[in-house]
Amino acid sequence: MNSISATGVELDSTVAPSTHASTEETMQAMGRAARAAARLMARADTATKNAALKAIAAELDAQRPQLAAANAKDMQNGRDSGLDAALLDRLELTDGRIDAMIQGLGQIAELPDPVGEISDLKFRPSGIQVGKMRVPLGVVGIIYESRPNVTIDAASLCLKSGNATILRGGKEALHSNGAIAACIAAGLKQVGLPETAVQVVATSDRAAVGALISMPEYVDVIVPRGGRGLIERISNDARVPVIKHLDGICHVYLDDRADPLKAFNIALNAKTHRYGVCNAMETLLVAEAVATEFLPKLAAAYSDKGVELRGCDKTRAILADILPATEEDWGTEYLAPVLSIRVVADMDAAMDHITRYSSGHTESIVTEDYSRARRFMAEVDSASVMVNASTRFADGFEYGLGAEIGISTDKIHARGPVGLEGLTSQKWIVFGDGQIRE
Amino acid sequence: MNSISATGVELDSTVAPSTHASTEETMQAMGRAARAAARLMARADTATKNAALKAIAAELDAQRPQLAAANAKDMQNGRDSGLDAALLDRLELTDGRIDAMIQGLGQIAELPDPVGEISDLKFRPSGIQVGKMRVPLGVVGIIYESRPNVTIDAASLCLKSGNATILRGGKEALHSNGAIAACIAAGLKQVGLPETAVQVVATSDRAAVGALISMPEYVDVIVPRGGRGLIERISNDARVPVIKHLDGICHVYLDDRADPLKAFNIALNAKTHRYGVCNAMETLLVAEAVATEFLPKLAAAYSDKGVELRGCDKTRAILADILPATEEDWGTEYLAPVLSIRVVADMDAAMDHITRYSSGHTESIVTEDYSRARRFMAEVDSASVMVNASTRFADGFEYGLGAEIGISTDKIHARGPVGLEGLTSQKWIVFGDGQIRE
Repeated sequence: MNSISATGVELDSTVAPSTHASTEETMQAMGRAARAAARLMARADTATKNAALKAIAAELDAQRPQLAAANAKDMQNGRDSGLDAALLDRLELTDGRIDAMIQGLGQIAELPDPVGEISDLKFRPSGIQVGKMRVPLGVVGIIYESRPNVTIDAASLCLKSGNATILRGGKEALHSNGAIAACIAAGLKQVGLPETAVQVVATSDRAAVGALISMPEYVDVIVPRGGRGLIERISNDARVPVIKHLDGICHVYLDDRADPLKAFNIALNAKTHRYGVCNAMETLLVAEAVATEFLPKLAAAYSDKGVELRGCDKTRAILADILPATEEDWGTEYLAPVLSIRVVADMDAAMDHITRYSSGHTESIVTEDYSRARRFMAEVDSASVMVNASTRFADGFEYGLGAEIGISTDKIHARGPVGLEGLTSQKWIVFGDGQIRE
Repeated sequence: MNSISATGVELDSTVAPSTHASTEETMQAMGRAARAAARLMARADTATKNAALKAIAAELDAQRPQLAAANAKDMQNGRDSGLDAALLDRLELTDGRIDAMIQGLGQIAELPDPVGEISDLKFRPSGIQVGKMRVPLGVVGIIYESRPNVTIDAASLCLKSGNATILRGGKEALHSNGAIAACIAAGLKQVGLPETAVQVVATSDRAAVGALISMPEYVDVIVPRGGRGLIERISNDARVPVIKHLDGICHVYLDDRADPLKAFNIALNAKTHRYGVCNAMETLLVAEAVATEFLPKLAAAYSDKGVELRGCDKTRAILADILPATEEDWGTEYLAPVLSIRVVADMDAAMDHITRYSSGHTESIVTEDYSRARRFMAEVDSASVMVNASTRFADGFEYGLGAEIGISTDKIHARGPVGLEGLTSQKWIVFGDGQIRE
């Protein structure tokens, strides 16, 4: 189980020794191979990359029995080691999930290729023409938990954006990821792209993660996907830039000039459309002047959906039977049918609350007031800021990115949903006719 | 000398104790003040920011005697501690350099304000309208060496881009930076912006740097300016994203389809226009088929300028009297009148050399061949890639950025010359009419 292979196909071999030192050496070797593959991927043309995506989809379809067998091993190991039902559910690779992976590959093949896009090409007084060209980042390291479909999502986004990638999934999905990696390798090979363009780390040795985030010479950026603990640990230890996705403590503010129907619909949808997602509302802020009008109707609707409410004193003066919200509530991402509610004096008080407690993911104001909408949009410092729309729209598909590798709560490089463009960089290009500096 | 003040005006006070613990506490206090100021700066309008830049310029002009007196102290301390002539030259604040700072402030006031710029606003099938808004990064920490004019450059770029900044200059320039900081504070105050928007660390205690790069809660990005050692140390230790500017090992490749006159002019200009700059050529690559034609004329011109040449064996077969270039030469940023020359088989060999030895700063090809120009542009992975132009153009002013805070050799966030845009981020904005996710 401690062996590592470039393609994941040697998963059951016991060739590689299991000491930490050798895991680090093996990660270095993967890094070198990734760096070499990145150069070839950067110049791969759009048609070849799309052909690879389709070939991988065909392999997944053809290898359903192998995928099922590998996943069955992981599921059995998971049950034996007492994984809870939610984790087992994420781990399972049903036929429907394989269909979704195949569909996802097709969708990414349809997206425009970001690589080589030239923008802002302008003549300068010196006579040179200066612009920017979009290029791959190089080698992207992705660290994630137990859902095997992330292996295909991440690999296909990196492939389309011309990057090489090293994927490190959760140990629970080791066999499933190995079987998926074999499909990816076969697809790459069919179209003549290097199999080392997508490498899956096939060991549960934790030293592999430590090595992956400490090789700036081979890895250009790390994208961790998972719980806050994992992401903070990686950010603290990494010697490579990290695109972080921390909490989603999202707010909706119902202004006293809100349209009541929009306010009701958005406040209900932002909380109850799905609970365990980062773009769900966790705190509702309501202007004092409309609290008595808005809150009872909303509370009844939340109650119908089984949402537990916790409120500030002013909220509890209106909704008598709910629990008080504590200081801890304002800073909590529930990811559950729980909502904290605060009555605020006005939009400024709402923005103060957001500045203090928001995780910088997504905030929405519901208002018909032009100047307030403009101010909220300009002054709230979150990755997504909305007027009269549900926070649930903060999503790569909804924004038109086609797919996302994560949602960044960072301000550097990529912010909000990260799609193909977030996996690229722009270099400067200069066209001259022999110009020199005088 | 170990006191720290928010504005630098208490430079000679001895209020703050000099222990490391208290330096860290003081840096934390500066961080908190910067974070609070950043919120106000983010919403400052263009006219106010421009008025501040002009007020600072007027202060610099009015306080020439104070600037001269403070600088004289630094110069005397420098001479007493045996600083070399080059360092003393950088440290000196002549009237001409004050003129240049005043002029620079005026130029930055003239630049368009990047904050609030909205782009790519598009309707999605759900009915929401999604786009991006350019916003300040927040708090920018800048660590630099002894040139006091960097204090004004950095402060003015951060101010115009709506950021708060904490500046930490070299200890040799402590008095000069204190006097400049007083002018900045006075200018900010005149227009009603927070004086803590620009804070200058007024201590030579090295613990201040350690604290500055370890406060992700207060500092959003660090820009180190200085030698490779300083930048690598900061990158390794920082817990905050760093925009790095490492070496400029720049290459010019003279293709066998180069126009001879363009080849001669560009190869000469890229090396000899200025020596101590990061965008000067350090290695010349020449296609074998034209080496005998191009090299003797170029060698004579370099000799006239006093440039020492070092060559590969094939170069030395043409230019008999030059020293051999060693493996070390290919990886060296000379910043001096020294040039290494390598004769290569063709463009592919030139690109292989660049991939191996370039620092990713700037490379140029001289060719009249359409397909080669296109390939070089697409395949060379450096911050600036040029066709038929001198590497000396890789510069914020020449690219039209107006000014630059540095030249990034990173791929993440900002690449190449970093101007106002590099000090901003883009958030997603969503305009709706009550849309919810179905």
